[in-house]
Amino acid sequence: MKQAIVARADLGMGEGKLAAQVAHASLSAYEDAGRTARNAWKGEGQKKVVLKATGESELFELADVAEREGLPHAIVRDAGHTQLDPGTVTALAVGPAEDDHVDRVTGDLSLY
Amino acid sequence: MKQAIVARADLGMGEGKLAAQVAHASLSAYEDAGRTARNAWKGEGQKKVVLKATGESELFELADVAEREGLPHAIVRDAGHTQLDPGTVTALAVGPAEDDHVDRVTGDLSLY
Repeated sequence: MKQAIVARADLGMGEGKLAAQVAHASLSAYEDAGRTARNAWKGEGQKKVVLKATGESELFELADVAEREGLPHAIVRDAGHTQLDPGTVTALAVGPAEDDHVDRVTGDLSLY
Repeated sequence: MKQAIVARADLGMGEGKLAAQVAHASLSAYEDAGRTARNAWKGEGQKKVVLKATGESELFELADVAEREGLPHAIVRDAGHTQLDPGTVTALAVGPAEDDHVDRVTGDLSLY
């Protein structure tokens, strides 16, 4: 079981900002998952990978694939208090789910 | 309502690694919180701040304060598959809770 969190590398987010956006996406997708997937993933240590996207359109395309695959997922929009304009799409989380199922959506992306 | 996630700045973690550790701490402390605090925090948009610690001992000291204050909190140890030795303590999350209650623990720290 794993969760993939895809964050935009084109926004110039600082390290702390990036981490907060990734955490937000992670929790939201976790809550979109069923109890069985949640518990299996936690039991295995909450494996996460953080991956790079090049822009907003790529995040939406990946979210569409996740939706078609029936995978838990969540898109994050920043509230815009700091660094970014309000409503900026920053990250997408996919899973927790079986590794190969998540890889069908995010398997071609590079590590952040 | 907010959650503060304190991560070690002395480990030289890469951006993606840092984000994964922060997300892990965030979710674990969230699960340590009661339903009322969880729902109130999510209803306000999951406000998070990512802060710097200088080393392991500082994280443990802050965790002790959070425990005494009765705040939900969680320490993360890395599984050590990449970059870090297994069991390395990397991050602490405190909250979700009222802002001023979280600040009693982490109010003196710098943004990451």
